[in-house]
Amino acid sequence: MSELLDQINQPGDIKQIDPKDYKALAWEIRRFMVRKVSRTGGHLASNLGVVELTMAIHLCCDFPHDQVIWDVGHQCYTHKILTGRKEGFDHLRQYGGMSGFPKRAESDCDVMDTGHSSTSISAALGLAKARDIKGEDHKIFAVIGDGALSGGMAYEALNNAARLKSNLIIVLNDNQMSISKNVGGMSNYLGKIRTNTNYTELKQDVENALEKMPHVGNRLTEKIRGVKDLVKRIFIPGMLFEDMGLTYIGPIDGHNIGQMVSAFHSAANMKEAVIVHVSTQKGKGYRPAEQDPSAFHGVGPFSIKDGTIRQNTEKILSYTDVFRETMLQLAEEDLRIAAVSAAMPSGTGLSAMAERYPERFFDVGIAEEHAVTFAAGMAIGEMKPVVALYSTFLQRAYDQILHDVCISGLPVVLAVDRAGLVGSDGETHQGIFDIAFLSQMPGMVLMAPKNAWELQQMLRFAVNAGCPVAVRYPRGKACQAFESYKQPIALGKSEWISRGREIALLAVGSMVEIAEEVCDNLRQQGYEPSLVNVRFVKPMDEEMLHMLPENHRLIVTLEEGVITGGFGQSVATWYEAQGHQAVQIYPVALPDQFIEHGPVETLREKYGISADRVTARILEQMED
Amino acid sequence: MSELLDQINQPGDIKQIDPKDYKALAWEIRRFMVRKVSRTGGHLASNLGVVELTMAIHLCCDFPHDQVIWDVGHQCYTHKILTGRKEGFDHLRQYGGMSGFPKRAESDCDVMDTGHSSTSISAALGLAKARDIKGEDHKIFAVIGDGALSGGMAYEALNNAARLKSNLIIVLNDNQMSISKNVGGMSNYLGKIRTNTNYTELKQDVENALEKMPHVGNRLTEKIRGVKDLVKRIFIPGMLFEDMGLTYIGPIDGHNIGQMVSAFHSAANMKEAVIVHVSTQKGKGYRPAEQDPSAFHGVGPFSIKDGTIRQNTEKILSYTDVFRETMLQLAEEDLRIAAVSAAMPSGTGLSAMAERYPERFFDVGIAEEHAVTFAAGMAIGEMKPVVALYSTFLQRAYDQILHDVCISGLPVVLAVDRAGLVGSDGETHQGIFDIAFLSQMPGMVLMAPKNAWELQQMLRFAVNAGCPVAVRYPRGKACQAFESYKQPIALGKSEWISRGREIALLAVGSMVEIAEEVCDNLRQQGYEPSLVNVRFVKPMDEEMLHMLPENHRLIVTLEEGVITGGFGQSVATWYEAQGHQAVQIYPVALPDQFIEHGPVETLREKYGISADRVTARILEQMED
Repeated sequence: MSELLDQINQPGDIKQIDPKDYKALAWEIRRFMVRKVSRTGGHLASNLGVVELTMAIHLCCDFPHDQVIWDVGHQCYTHKILTGRKEGFDHLRQYGGMSGFPKRAESDCDVMDTGHSSTSISAALGLAKARDIKGEDHKIFAVIGDGALSGGMAYEALNNAARLKSNLIIVLNDNQMSISKNVGGMSNYLGKIRTNTNYTELKQDVENALEKMPHVGNRLTEKIRGVKDLVKRIFIPGMLFEDMGLTYIGPIDGHNIGQMVSAFHSAANMKEAVIVHVSTQKGKGYRPAEQDPSAFHGVGPFSIKDGTIRQNTEKILSYTDVFRETMLQLAEEDLRIAAVSAAMPSGTGLSAMAERYPERFFDVGIAEEHAVTFAAGMAIGEMKPVVALYSTFLQRAYDQILHDVCISGLPVVLAVDRAGLVGSDGETHQGIFDIAFLSQMPGMVLMAPKNAWELQQMLRFAVNAGCPVAVRYPRGKACQAFESYKQPIALGKSEWISRGREIALLAVGSMVEIAEEVCDNLRQQGYEPSLVNVRFVKPMDEEMLHMLPENHRLIVTLEEGVITGGFGQSVATWYEAQGHQAVQIYPVALPDQFIEHGPVETLREKYGISADRVTARILEQMED
Repeated sequence: MSELLDQINQPGDIKQIDPKDYKALAWEIRRFMVRKVSRTGGHLASNLGVVELTMAIHLCCDFPHDQVIWDVGHQCYTHKILTGRKEGFDHLRQYGGMSGFPKRAESDCDVMDTGHSSTSISAALGLAKARDIKGEDHKIFAVIGDGALSGGMAYEALNNAARLKSNLIIVLNDNQMSISKNVGGMSNYLGKIRTNTNYTELKQDVENALEKMPHVGNRLTEKIRGVKDLVKRIFIPGMLFEDMGLTYIGPIDGHNIGQMVSAFHSAANMKEAVIVHVSTQKGKGYRPAEQDPSAFHGVGPFSIKDGTIRQNTEKILSYTDVFRETMLQLAEEDLRIAAVSAAMPSGTGLSAMAERYPERFFDVGIAEEHAVTFAAGMAIGEMKPVVALYSTFLQRAYDQILHDVCISGLPVVLAVDRAGLVGSDGETHQGIFDIAFLSQMPGMVLMAPKNAWELQQMLRFAVNAGCPVAVRYPRGKACQAFESYKQPIALGKSEWISRGREIALLAVGSMVEIAEEVCDNLRQQGYEPSLVNVRFVKPMDEEMLHMLPENHRLIVTLEEGVITGGFGQSVATWYEAQGHQAVQIYPVALPDQFIEHGPVETLREKYGISADRVTARILEQMED
């Protein structure tokens, strides 16, 4: 059977489709995405929601001449399909395969490598000014979800866009969700707009009535005529945006291509930034995703028939699970424990806390900066706040951690989930910078657990430490090994796993398990290496460091983080400052570059931090 | 003559003052501040603006039981006066003296050590939730300027406050200024509110008229009654905030104590976050500051009589001046050069660019995150944007630099002003983290000039480098020495100042001048040190590093930045990774702690980076 999708092979091909076939094409695109993602895994619900929206943009645009920036970026699948990348879906998010995010290196129709939320309006405004300065006239779109609109920089950009008077079409893709349900004032406001569809109708009626009012006295009549533009405030949805100086069109049905095309054409003819507010449904067209869009946000392989997500048969306990259970326990024991999430109650494991202790759980929306300073405020108020964020998103709050938490040494605990390599989301989601940027903050205590038991213990230590503490732990399965190593946590103290000589491995968190394997390998080569579970990246265990040179000549540090500014550098510098010249420090860490998507194991191997690679590297050093 | 101010010696004393004397007290406070700041220097215009506002808050509060957070914090002088710290003004901002910002260590009436903009609502909301959870009932104020309201995290906090339903009084101190004139959509909106004072009057008239309308048909009459609350939208200022779910009171005259006290009492009785919008005048009561509030924002000693600011008689050329002139030249030569400022066109020197090339200059307001991603957008659009920010404020844009600029290797230039120690503003303003956090970003090029000539050359190099480049330079006088050292800038190449043996000094930027003095000292001790002007913190000059061990045994790195993650660590690690055990690396940098206020020279001495201290430290190493 010939398919419409067969005719879509390069940018612009969609314009050859007969408008009466748009619905059929949308259906084919959805079927295509469901089939592909059911095999590879990927972001599904958001992509199913924006099929018609993306088609409408493509019908109005001429790519790559025109430019669209996808905020966050994981909703770009239809855009990839319409720009000649259908084949890429067979290896979506796989090592060497197509990215699940826009990538400039992949296509000149991808303008920006997005990944974090709320950046699209800023970048699009920059594009718009560049276009205007150069006297060009192409169209520029930013597509941003209502969830991303809770991020502060989106507001900074709107605030600036209102003033710069460049044409820019900001599509507010309103699906009432970020990954979970949206929260906050803006979200409520958008809800009001959506439910007040009778505004437009009313507007005309009342304007007519006001025109006809003869008996209320000249003074008032004049005043009213003078405030004509104010009258529309009653009736026009989106007045908040208009108040800021932006033009607002909407709300529009985000599954009606004709309406959207018409709105985009109107918007493109204005001299300013225009918000086009479209309502879409996450998961649209595939019932399991419609019913549980959170589960189908980022999803592994699943059965198309009933939407059953394939799980490994063995029950995996993840570090997130350990965090979730520990938080419940700590919150039960101590009424001062509170938890803060930035729009990821489920991903961070805090939804359990939200259910059991709703009065001490706060989801602040996609707003990492606010999350940290809000927690600082709670800490000043003598609570014990725990902020759970993914490592990559914690980057947003660098200044807030440094100033609002560390300057006053406030007891805020940062639970840094997804620290280290995360796999298929790639560059923008790897949690590889946290060791470097948290280490440089005065007064910060930074820990990483070797296994599930240790994460529990570290969290318990952290909430009682009385100072800023970050605990970083990786995505996925919690290590259950090292059962017999249960030395109590003490500030700045490491834990010896095995005592040997000549070579000492100092391993941070996830690298302890790998280092243990390295030790086995080295033993087979006749060495007797020592293995230390670092536990505290900061403060370092100086007593241990002092002792090592006595019977070791090579000290290998191991961390799943970028080398520059990492733990290895701190150790190397410490020895240099001490003048210990008899010992060589060899830092094993990720190189100074961004790491692409792929399975964590593959990436560890490629970047030299797998057990085999580390063994080889150490042996090479020993031969020198 | 007995003064009212004599009666103000501890928190609460203001409540003993007869209300008829409030004006006189305000006058005395202004006179006190003008006198003191005219001698010590300090923030004046903002403090003169909030005298009555602060008095009103104190009249409503019981400190330290009640809590007020001063956004940014430099407007806290009246608060300090009213909480028993009058004497501190004799040594305001001097080493060992009182800070110009709120400091928890100074008084229990200071809740938070603020310094950066837009954090107060987040922290206050945290305090409010902590209070509610603990069943307490004190008042919590956040005082935030309209300038700070353009920072995204203030919006994140408002968005969250709308939902959390805790009482919190957000005083919007509207003076139409940040340091310079405010810009952006929100600023325009506040302007509209201020100028529409006839709203309240109109409201009643029209409501009456609508009630009386008999002839417009039942259907409409019913609809109108059904949308009664919508009618008020026409007439109530602050609807934007109400739309977000916040309660709004205002605008109120911020120099009328009675009105403010009454508004604060009303606000305190509500169950939610309330915005009290007060209009104040920056510089109020001291004509020179009223006329030029920007000049009296942060000011050195001045003549009270005519407001003449005392300048050193010698004309000092600052690095900011060099940047300003170089930007004009570059912009003239290349139409693709554009400049971005975050509310500091004057402080960064970009106001000259704003005048000469307004179409290529963008002041985005206090919005560092947006500033960087906006520039990334311009770079994608093939412009050559230069973002000029103070080092300390650049921290806000960590994630945007890392992701939006570095992942795609975009040619955005960061002009990092006030890098290193800045002096009297203290902890929150020292520019000591930029080397560490920029070094860890893959693909970033980081430079620091030794003198004025080199800053010009580096900027020229940077705008043509085609990749992310940061150039960091210190506050104040541009070094004019090293006239004969004009080796052209080449990527990753350092510059030899003197070639010697045994000891090599690798100095970054501002430390080259100090290192030269150290070399002189060492020569007097019989050594023949080498001196290298590092130029590129990243990428490092590996060729130079390789060569050094040939005839040096001690390599001293010198940088005006925090040690952890700094240049010294990169060098130490590089040698470790190379296995160069014959050479010792000794890093001279600032310790792993926050640095208080005081003269830069004093701080350099105290923290071991002055020429004398460095000399002594090196000699000690040589003796080991």
